[in-house]
Amino acid sequence: MATNQDQTTSQKPGHPPAQATLHEVRTAENSAAFLLPKLQDMKNVNPDLKLLDVGCGSGTIAASFAKLIPEGRVTGIDVNSSILPRARAVAEMNGVANIEFQEGSIFQLPFADETFDVTFCHQVLIHIGTPWDALREMLRVTKRGGIVAAREGDYESECIWPELPGLKKFHALMAGCMKAGGGNPTTGRLLLSWALKIGVERSHVQSSFGTSSYDTPSGRNTCSKGLRDQLRGGSLREKAFKYGLGSENDLDEMIEAWEEWEKRDDASLSMLQGEILIQK
Amino acid sequence: MATNQDQTTSQKPGHPPAQATLHEVRTAENSAAFLLPKLQDMKNVNPDLKLLDVGCGSGTIAASFAKLIPEGRVTGIDVNSSILPRARAVAEMNGVANIEFQEGSIFQLPFADETFDVTFCHQVLIHIGTPWDALREMLRVTKRGGIVAAREGDYESECIWPELPGLKKFHALMAGCMKAGGGNPTTGRLLLSWALKIGVERSHVQSSFGTSSYDTPSGRNTCSKGLRDQLRGGSLREKAFKYGLGSENDLDEMIEAWEEWEKRDDASLSMLQGEILIQK
Repeated sequence: MATNQDQTTSQKPGHPPAQATLHEVRTAENSAAFLLPKLQDMKNVNPDLKLLDVGCGSGTIAASFAKLIPEGRVTGIDVNSSILPRARAVAEMNGVANIEFQEGSIFQLPFADETFDVTFCHQVLIHIGTPWDALREMLRVTKRGGIVAAREGDYESECIWPELPGLKKFHALMAGCMKAGGGNPTTGRLLLSWALKIGVERSHVQSSFGTSSYDTPSGRNTCSKGLRDQLRGGSLREKAFKYGLGSENDLDEMIEAWEEWEKRDDASLSMLQGEILIQK
Repeated sequence: MATNQDQTTSQKPGHPPAQATLHEVRTAENSAAFLLPKLQDMKNVNPDLKLLDVGCGSGTIAASFAKLIPEGRVTGIDVNSSILPRARAVAEMNGVANIEFQEGSIFQLPFADETFDVTFCHQVLIHIGTPWDALREMLRVTKRGGIVAAREGDYESECIWPELPGLKKFHALMAGCMKAGGGNPTTGRLLLSWALKIGVERSHVQSSFGTSSYDTPSGRNTCSKGLRDQLRGGSLREKAFKYGLGSENDLDEMIEAWEEWEKRDDASLSMLQGEILIQK
């Protein structure tokens, strides 16, 4: 979500912004598992890998990539420069120095052709209107023999239990915000088609589906708190009003529903994540 | 699906029935991965494990369990006795002898209390009206300290691309058949709630979500052919007519759509699979 152009909430380096608390549980292990065997193979051949994380947000995934390739170098880039101090703080907290962050757009990456061995994004293409152009740009900055890896949710596959009315409204709000911003809630299932659309051969794409889910007490707390923060004061609240997708009362109902959901021992939220690995 | 009470199609031991071709790609590795680390731990303590596969169908998962616990013993049970010769043939083709199959209902398992170390089912609870009673019965036949493991699809999470009209009709037909038979298409997300409903403590349940997907050329062929077989002459065709959920023309449209889907290099089908491990 860090690619949002209309991000205005301020933040301090040591404290995640409201919309980032939920994102900061992300690591390479839980959000890029489909890429890790390939990354290990590449590292065995060349430990000095250059990895780009596009739309890195507060950098938790980038920092864990940096740990995985200690002799390599990770670059995190985000269109929202105000998140970058937080990303640098996260890297420092993780004790990684082989990492750098800079501002930049996925549509015009500030790097020469064939710069990186691995170019990665997660939950970025789902928010933009011409994701195939973004994929083409990611391929451009990737070395021949390198990998472009993308993992994006398929929001229409989301399963929430219990099915509280406020959570159904929340689901509609999220999908509405994605669409209003030009994104596509069914991105997960479309990744492969976009790779083929820009001329990648089918035999060069490995497609798979993973899951993201919250169904333990601590997972429910992380998820509920993160989403309530976004509804109370994050970019989601701003967008709900900006696009006319929810009233104050609607948002209050959603917040209460997430509180109720968090308390329920049988509660869960899960979603399919589309995954592609493109061999350049 | 092998728990269907209205199964009438005949079959030969050496040849899978129409509705089984798609099921026979299932193995413990691809359909019970969430259970395997626990199974390995249990085997390290006691190699002589007794495992029950409830609703075993043509027995491909049971046969791979038998390979994984060569010093143990697997029992496969299915309410549909006509599938059992096929299950025995599959076991023989897999070269496993520590396995046996018998007829029986998940609601009245023909075993004494505390017989098995592991009691497993996959795609069984989704088809029945009182799945909590089935879980209770699975717990009954499981030893103290043993495991009940269930993996069930959440059909409402299904993502199909491309979204051909015939495939949308097919999705509705499948959901309609499940409901008409008393089942619930959202079973995946409900497993945890059913375990709690029968009095299992939350701390004794490990909940997770996996995926099943078809998105490679060979996977598309398996999926498309299996579903077309079911539409042409399997139990799905019988149910469509029995429950008034589709005409000859509708089924023809679905068959053509699956043919078209199979040819498309960007095609995929994926679904969330709810998973629970209950420690007794």
